[in-house]
Amino acid sequence: MTQVVEQTAIQLLTELGQFGGLANGGVTRLVYDQAWVDAMTYTLKTAAAQGMQVHIDAMGNGFMTYPGVDQTVIAAGSHIDTVQQGGIYDGAYGVVAAKLAMTQLVAEFGQPKHTMTAVAFSEEEGSRFPVSFSGSRHYAQVGDVAPDLKDAQGISFDTARRQAVAQLTGNFPLAEQPLPKEWLELHIEQGPVLEEAGYPLGVVSAICEQKRFTITLTGQANHAGTTPQHLRRDALKAAARLIVQLDDLAQKIGEPFVFTVGEISVTPGSSNVIPGQAVFSVDIRHPQKTVVDEFEAKMRQMVADSAPVSGTVDCWMDSRPAVMDPRLVRQFESLLTQQGYQYLTLPSGAGHDTQIMNLKVPTAMLFVPSRGGISHAPAEYTAPAALEAGVAMLKAQLYHECY
Amino acid sequence: MTQVVEQTAIQLLTELGQFGGLANGGVTRLVYDQAWVDAMTYTLKTAAAQGMQVHIDAMGNGFMTYPGVDQTVIAAGSHIDTVQQGGIYDGAYGVVAAKLAMTQLVAEFGQPKHTMTAVAFSEEEGSRFPVSFSGSRHYAQVGDVAPDLKDAQGISFDTARRQAVAQLTGNFPLAEQPLPKEWLELHIEQGPVLEEAGYPLGVVSAICEQKRFTITLTGQANHAGTTPQHLRRDALKAAARLIVQLDDLAQKIGEPFVFTVGEISVTPGSSNVIPGQAVFSVDIRHPQKTVVDEFEAKMRQMVADSAPVSGTVDCWMDSRPAVMDPRLVRQFESLLTQQGYQYLTLPSGAGHDTQIMNLKVPTAMLFVPSRGGISHAPAEYTAPAALEAGVAMLKAQLYHECY
Repeated sequence: MTQVVEQTAIQLLTELGQFGGLANGGVTRLVYDQAWVDAMTYTLKTAAAQGMQVHIDAMGNGFMTYPGVDQTVIAAGSHIDTVQQGGIYDGAYGVVAAKLAMTQLVAEFGQPKHTMTAVAFSEEEGSRFPVSFSGSRHYAQVGDVAPDLKDAQGISFDTARRQAVAQLTGNFPLAEQPLPKEWLELHIEQGPVLEEAGYPLGVVSAICEQKRFTITLTGQANHAGTTPQHLRRDALKAAARLIVQLDDLAQKIGEPFVFTVGEISVTPGSSNVIPGQAVFSVDIRHPQKTVVDEFEAKMRQMVADSAPVSGTVDCWMDSRPAVMDPRLVRQFESLLTQQGYQYLTLPSGAGHDTQIMNLKVPTAMLFVPSRGGISHAPAEYTAPAALEAGVAMLKAQLYHECY
Repeated sequence: MTQVVEQTAIQLLTELGQFGGLANGGVTRLVYDQAWVDAMTYTLKTAAAQGMQVHIDAMGNGFMTYPGVDQTVIAAGSHIDTVQQGGIYDGAYGVVAAKLAMTQLVAEFGQPKHTMTAVAFSEEEGSRFPVSFSGSRHYAQVGDVAPDLKDAQGISFDTARRQAVAQLTGNFPLAEQPLPKEWLELHIEQGPVLEEAGYPLGVVSAICEQKRFTITLTGQANHAGTTPQHLRRDALKAAARLIVQLDDLAQKIGEPFVFTVGEISVTPGSSNVIPGQAVFSVDIRHPQKTVVDEFEAKMRQMVADSAPVSGTVDCWMDSRPAVMDPRLVRQFESLLTQQGYQYLTLPSGAGHDTQIMNLKVPTAMLFVPSRGGISHAPAEYTAPAALEAGVAMLKAQLYHECY
């Protein structure tokens, strides 16, 4: 096993990044496509070569296990799918780090007391089918995907899943896996906070409550030249005032609350016509549900008060906050302090597989810095030393939990 | 001639509205299309039947003349093209009214001292080719259209023009027309001011200076969940604040100043991504150029001050204001008062052929109310009594100018 123990996270990430790798250094590896099948095959084969027991489940999740003295499972991992034109770190780092940490532990300390399983979730990004977290949702037993969901080419989720899983079962046994006792995940931060602080690691306190809305303001389209100011019902001006009000409110709430309008459109959309309708998205996140709900209530009141236009608010996404397990968080913090790492404890504004696992079992997460806060792009980058620090801390945490 | 004298404006508009007429009551009659050729043919043939001399020029403008004792020409009219899905009033009313007023005058008072010409301009709306006012620009000799401009089907302006004019010259003599001594135009208001005041007529004081801009604000696209407030460079929030500031400034300037943002888009345009760029249009209008220029200067300063985003301002349209001839305006006002009409004197926020004629000769315009301020739509409507009042006042003005 020594050759693997000597491998570094960046070596493994670079190897995995070749599956779906792009000329610009990025990766496009969508769930169940051939690059994805090849990446999963490579991941499980190399794990088997290190003495791990490997399985896949019906969703195509990959499991790499060192059996313990007992059958209590401590699992760690992340996903191996990417967005279109993504980077080599997002998701893949959590998979590679779990394999590496477990392999090093077994090499150094032999068989663990509890069973250790590294997990490569099939899908988290929602970049092929209009669904996210389908891998962790299956493993956590919180509801599978509707099988008739279609990708952009009209291929159904179920057809793609069956074809990909059939390829994998040629090499690996198919077996549903029991829920672990605990779940751990390493992930790139995808934000600039750790880099700004200058720390190599962050302990996640909670994954934010996240709500998304579509707000529609309806006024009256009219001639831009002939309609006097006092007779206008301009939907875009009302939208601009509302966005400013909401941003002022967000700033008053303060960090880590975030409020984003990422999409806006107006109808009819001509430079010489007063917009009769403006439609925009609202994305709000905070680790406490009460903060999100209070913002929402004030937002709904502001929309109701948007005369001379009328407005509607449609909430189309509501992910509950996932609070990390206090004991596991404290233990991560203690281990970091013991090993002399500077770290932040911070909420995650992005969603992760851990929020799904958190519905069923105690969870904890570590972040490594994202240069420039960039993710979901070929320019994704984390310094090798931070990657290694993350692996070392996951290894320390797993040692405490499994040995 | 008695049968025409007894015709009403609404009868003539309804007849003309059949050329390009739609099932929904609207009209699509784009310059040089077959409906346009048929409408021009009908217009000139019915004029010839009333004893008018009819001509077309190389641009396809139609001229209907009662020769006077001398060759000094007093001209009135408007355009016969429409927007896509327009109404039966815009443009057509000015053509029909000029014919009707002149025909009535000759029927009642015989040959005028000065020559009276009713003009049906070929094109004003810019709804087929990316050019406006091509008819009046030709007549006023202020520069013709680039002949290789293409419509949406790839047909060049010159090809369409030659084919349409060739059809017309089968029936009517081709002759370029000299500039008139004065120009008069009746038009629907296209705004709600007269209707709100409850007056059947308005005297136009000036056609507004009109400038259009594209403003581009550039920040930094980033993850909506993981980028803290203080590290955001959100182009859309900056745009919203700028639009509110500009609207506040517009309200401070007060009516008749108008400020419109009719188009806006953001990049990348995803609900969970902070917009890195926002692009929006600005349309500003006022009868005084200084007011428009002062707003523009303040707007450019605000854009320059838009940190943490950077901005550019591109002015892509600048139409000079057209001040109506004071004598003709006063005479319209006197005649209205004499005949017991309530009226407003108001600037036109919309552009009209008169602004082109105004570059060369004294001009005046009358407006009739637009129900609900609506124009460029099948729902365009002006009450028949207001249409008749307009014809009566044009007739009175022409009597003063031509007899």
